[in-house]
This record gives sequence, C-alpha cells and structure tokens, in this order.
Amino acid sequence: MSYNVALIPGDGIGPEIVEQAVQVLDTAGKKFGFTLNYTKLLMGGASIDVHGIPLTDETIETAKKNDAVLMGSIGGDAKTSPWYKLEPSRRPEAGLLKLRKSLNLFANLRPAYLYKELKDACPLRDEIIGDGFDMMIMRELTGGLYFGERKTVEENGVKKAIDTLTYDENEIRRIAKRGFDIAMKRRKKVTSVDKANVLDSSRLWRSVVEEVAKDYPEVTLEHMLVDNCAMQLVRDPKQFDVILTENMFGDILSDEASMVTGSIGMLSSASLNETSFGLYEPSHGSAPDIAGKDIANPIATILSAAMMLRFSLNLDEAADAIENAVSQVLKDGYRTGDIMSEGCTKVGCKEMGRLIAERV
Amino acid sequence: MSYNVALIPGDGIGPEIVEQAVQVLDTAGKKFGFTLNYTKLLMGGASIDVHGIPLTDETIETAKKNDAVLMGSIGGDAKTSPWYKLEPSRRPEAGLLKLRKSLNLFANLRPAYLYKELKDACPLRDEIIGDGFDMMIMRELTGGLYFGERKTVEENGVKKAIDTLTYDENEIRRIAKRGFDIAMKRRKKVTSVDKANVLDSSRLWRSVVEEVAKDYPEVTLEHMLVDNCAMQLVRDPKQFDVILTENMFGDILSDEASMVTGSIGMLSSASLNETSFGLYEPSHGSAPDIAGKDIANPIATILSAAMMLRFSLNLDEAADAIENAVSQVLKDGYRTGDIMSEGCTKVGCKEMGRLIAERV
Ligand SMILES: CC(C)[C@H](C(=O)O)[C@@H](O)C(=O)O
Ligand SMILES: CC(C)[C@H](C(=O)O)[C@@H](O)C(=O)O
Repeated sequence: MSYNVALIPGDGIGPEIVEQAVQVLDTAGKKFGFTLNYTKLLMGGASIDVHGIPLTDETIETAKKNDAVLMGSIGGDAKTSPWYKLEPSRRPEAGLLKLRKSLNLFANLRPAYLYKELKDACPLRDEIIGDGFDMMIMRELTGGLYFGERKTVEENGVKKAIDTLTYDENEIRRIAKRGFDIAMKRRKKVTSVDKANVLDSSRLWRSVVEEVAKDYPEVTLEHMLVDNCAMQLVRDPKQFDVILTENMFGDILSDEASMVTGSIGMLSSASLNETSFGLYEPSHGSAPDIAGKDIANPIATILSAAMMLRFSLNLDEAADAIENAVSQVLKDGYRTGDIMSEGCTKVGCKEMGRLIAERV
Repeated sequence: MSYNVALIPGDGIGPEIVEQAVQVLDTAGKKFGFTLNYTKLLMGGASIDVHGIPLTDETIETAKKNDAVLMGSIGGDAKTSPWYKLEPSRRPEAGLLKLRKSLNLFANLRPAYLYKELKDACPLRDEIIGDGFDMMIMRELTGGLYFGERKTVEENGVKKAIDTLTYDENEIRRIAKRGFDIAMKRRKKVTSVDKANVLDSSRLWRSVVEEVAKDYPEVTLEHMLVDNCAMQLVRDPKQFDVILTENMFGDILSDEASMVTGSIGMLSSASLNETSFGLYEPSHGSAPDIAGKDIANPIATILSAAMMLRFSLNLDEAADAIENAVSQVLKDGYRTGDIMSEGCTKVGCKEMGRLIAERV
C-alpha cells in the first residue's frame, strides 16, 4: 500500500525532528509493507520567508490532496524574530490557525501521559503520581474565541477591543461524540470542562454533551468547571481519563496537563476532521534557541507519526511497533538532554531517531 | 476609631469561618484601639432561601454604606442543592457576580503563597519548591467574558450561544496601574498574561500594559501567553512576583496557583474599587460537605480580614499582628484537618480561631 503524506517541517527544531520521524516511518514501512510519498510544504516563518505570508492557498490545496499531514513546529522567538514585527494576521501562528480552519480540523487529541521511565522529571510528588496517569485531552479546535468575530474600535477617543465566543449545537455535538468514542476505547470516563456558571456557550455545551452521553450508557460523564479543572490537574491528575473541552480552555488545560506529566518532549497530538484525514504534530513548541544543534528531542514527533498511522492510515500494527520502539529506547536508558537523568546515556536528535528506527 | 463592616457569611462553611474571623478582628480591635460595627447581609443561597434571589438591591445599597465587606463563601453542591434547579441568573454565584459589578470591584488580588510549615502539603517536589514561592495574582474582575453581552439563539432549528469578551483601554489601564503599584511594594516584577497571538482584546491589553509600564521604570515587565503561564506555574512557580491578567484567565490561573501552593485553605483575597472600599473573602469555596461540623479551616478568612484592615481601614499594625498570629499558630503545630500532618495537633474551626485570637 502507498499513501501520500504532506510534511510541514516548519520552524525552529521542526525540520530536524520531522527528519527523524520520517526515518522511523520509512523503517516501519519496510517492515510492514507500505510506502509513504512525501510532499514538503512551507508554513509559518518558513513560508513568510519565501512568500511573505505564513500559509498560501496553494499550500492548503496541496495539503488537502494528501492522506495526512505531519508537522514539526511553527513560530520563532517573539522577542527577536522579524516575523513578529508583522501584523498578527501575517505572523507564523496565524498560518497554523488558518490551516486548522481550512481543513476543518475540529477534533484535537492531546494525550498527556506520564512515562514511568521519566517519573523523576515529573514536577509532582511521588504520592500524587502513584501508579502514573494517562489522560486524553479532546479539545475543540475550530470554534470559540479563536474563530469568532473580533474587532478593535475607537469610541469617543477610547480604544475598545471585542472578541466573540460562539458555539452552535452541531459544533459541540460532533466534538462530544469524538470524545465519547475515544472514551469507549479507554477507561470509559469523560470529564466535560466548561464555565457554565458564567457563559451561555458553556451552558449550551453542557446540555449538548449530556444529550450525546445518552448514546454512551457505558461511559461515566462528569462536568467540571474550568477553574476547578486547572486545580485538579495538579492535585490529582490520576482522576482523569478523557477531558472534553472547548478551544481556549483546551489550549490552557492541555498545556498544563502536558507540563504536569513532566514528559512534554514526549507528547504527540492529532487534529482530525470528519474524514480519516488528520494533521499530526508534537505538543511542544519550536524551541528556536536549540534549533539546528542536533539536541532536540524527536520523540513527540515520532509518536505523532505513529498516531498518523493509526488514525489516518489504519496501520495499527506499524503504529504499535513505533510506540513500542519508543518505550524500548527509554528502557534501554537512552535520553535526549531535556529528559536526561543520572545513569542514562545522553544522545542527540539524530541518534535518538536512529535508535528508535532500529527498534521498530 | 470605629469602622463599619458588612458581613456576608454566605453558604456552607461561610458562617462558621466568618465567626472566627470576627473573633480575631475584635481581639485585634481591643489591642489596637479600634471598633468594628458589623451589619450582617444575606447573599447567595442564604438570600435565595429568604428573598428568592441571590442578592437584593437593598443588600447592595447597605453594603455600599460600609467601609468594607467581609465575606465567607457562596454556593452549595450543584448536584444536590435546590438552588441549582433555578435558572443561572438566580443561582448563588450570580449574586457574587452582581455584587462585584455593582460595587465596581475591578481589582481582585489573590496572593498565592507557600507556607513553609505546610511544605509537605504542596503537590510539587522539593526541588521545585526550593526556598518557597510567593506570588500575587492581580485579576481584572468586572470586565471580559464575565460581563460581556451574551445570548442563546435558534437559527434554522440550530441552537447557538454567543458570549462577548470586551475590554476598553481605561479598564485595562486601571487594573494595570494597580498591578504595577503592588509590584513596587514587592519584588518589582510584573508578568502580564494574555493570548495576544489570538485575541484582539489581548493585543489591546498588551499595548496598554506597556504604556502603563513606562511610568514604572523600576519594575520589570514580561508578557506571557496564558497557555505557557499555565505550564510555568507548575514548572517553576518561583519565577513569578505579580501576575496581571484579565478576568477569565485570572479565574483559571489563580485557582491553579492556589493549588500549586498546597495551601488552599490558607489563601485570602481582596476585591477593590477606585476608593479604599473592598470586599474580602477566602480563595476557597463553600465546602458544603463539611459545613456545620466545626472542622473547616478559618485561616483564609482570618487572613482576608487582615487584608481588610490593611487595604480598606489603614490599620497596618493590626493586620501585621493577625498575620503574625497565624504564622505563630502554625509554628506551634496546630492544624485543622485539611492541613494536618504528622506530629501536629489537630484542632477544629472554633479552636483554631481561638488559638489565633490568643496570639494577636
Ligand atoms: C500557536 C497558538 C495559536 C496555538 C493555539 O493557541 O492553539 C498553540 O498554543 C497550540 O496550542 O497549538
Ligand atoms: C463562583 C464563580 C462565578 C467565581 C468566578 O468565576 O469568578 C469563582 O470561581 C471565583 O473565582 O471567585
């Protein structure tokens, strides 16, 4: 079998981590009998440098023709990079938002998992970690404050800015269904997070989620206010299985959850639409300060590639093999600098990629 | 000197913790030569039970006539309490929001402080705690998504909900000034938190904060995106002095920060307007499950009372005395159940109040 994959290496450490993911994918391809045909696309700063804008319509059209997109990371150092002298709609991140919307990638899956081997890197005490934790954040990605109308006006000499948070019941229903579907394959618990004591959109969210829940009698649903969830992630992350939430809350909570695991260089993500198409990228950023030094951790990108095989290409076996190879490399004591600990062997980005490929 | 203080005991553990704060205040009054005249007011569930609504106009008017308001906690168990069968605008929390707005309490100060004596209750590892941390969250409290227009409509049979996030430059300027003023009395660092890569309101926020910063050349200003801040609070809370942010982000981050300290039963808060008037309340909730059992921790309320003396009544010495009494009681090994640890003496709510009053 052969599939078409668009590669968006992006900025900062993006190109080097994507290179390692490709190496691992190709090794898996040889072993499990599939071929991936790659098309490289420019986005973010890399696209600004060439086209003056972070995402061209041609790039969107090409991306759509592929079976999936594998991305590195987007953006640079906001303090020093000339990209951030541009107006907001022309900056690197605007490309990412436009791509999400153009490809209708409404379902963002962010696993937040504690790697037993990396327990020491977890900021939480051992009593709280217990036997470890394993959550899936299901974040709505194409609605809410991110894509509502916004404007800045001047009234009687006073500047005023307005952003709009909108959700309709269809947008909520489709993400809720995805959340419950995922929960059915996991520990069958959904925590729906909102601010229903304040927001109309959250009250609609809650009622639609309850409606959807009726089709999943085996799944336990609980509602949690976003401020409480931000506390509970620190107090007792073990309690969570699937966290289902809207775009902005998901942005904040998924970053908090990934830091709580202590394994941020290890966390992948998938952004899916109604079809099998998806965009896959690490949860971490572009780390411009260490770009090009061959010290970045490619594991999050390699695990994102595994997610791609599973969700978009239906190659479960190969996905398993890659995930197992990552576990094995950790068990064998290899670490990049960000997850280094005593008694382990420190390796660079390329070497880590090679070690994982070897174990696929 | 004599001052007028409105008391809002509220719901759940509210009445019992406020009672202890009053005892401590009266002891301080005797020692430092001031009298407080209290007027008890109903709000939240307690008001619903009597008036059918969580806050009457008479209550607002009476509150305004006082020098300050000391509050317990508002709300009940959303799953079991009949208050939550009412429509949202009639529920307990709606009273709190209405009071904030009616009294123009735009500046919400939430200290997030690690008590050395309670280090073991902190969920973070000792390496991260280091010498401890001490932040002040300055949250804008009368704008943003909380008070923007909202509605739920039906278009072609599809329900749609809209909330609006609005800030004008005057609203931002006054809270920013408060943030910098507080920073001048602390470690002279302000971290302004926004989502300027997405929201117009955040871009306006950032530019006004930068303008205000010019009047405070001694203060170091940094901008941080809200998702990153949610991570940094877990990764390295020591880096923060004053966190300055808008209403919803402040709601989420202040709760996260208070949990990160591990001392949530200890954290006070103040909500101020342009005058010396203020509303003081613990950061924690109404804990209906333990109400009336004399086991609640009154310390957050007692420390809120100390903040009241300092900010609204200009009684710094008495405020210091109360804060020192709290430290002393912890050093002497007394603990309520929520902060109990080995080798300490467990006491109830009343006894804790008495022990602190004794040390004022
Ligand atoms: C870069 C930014 C616009 C983006 C977001 O807020 O969604 C990022 O933080 C993320 O979570 O993918
Ligand atoms: C009760 C609720 C409306 C309130 C808020 O969101 O402001 C609370 O969470 C708080 O932080 O004081």
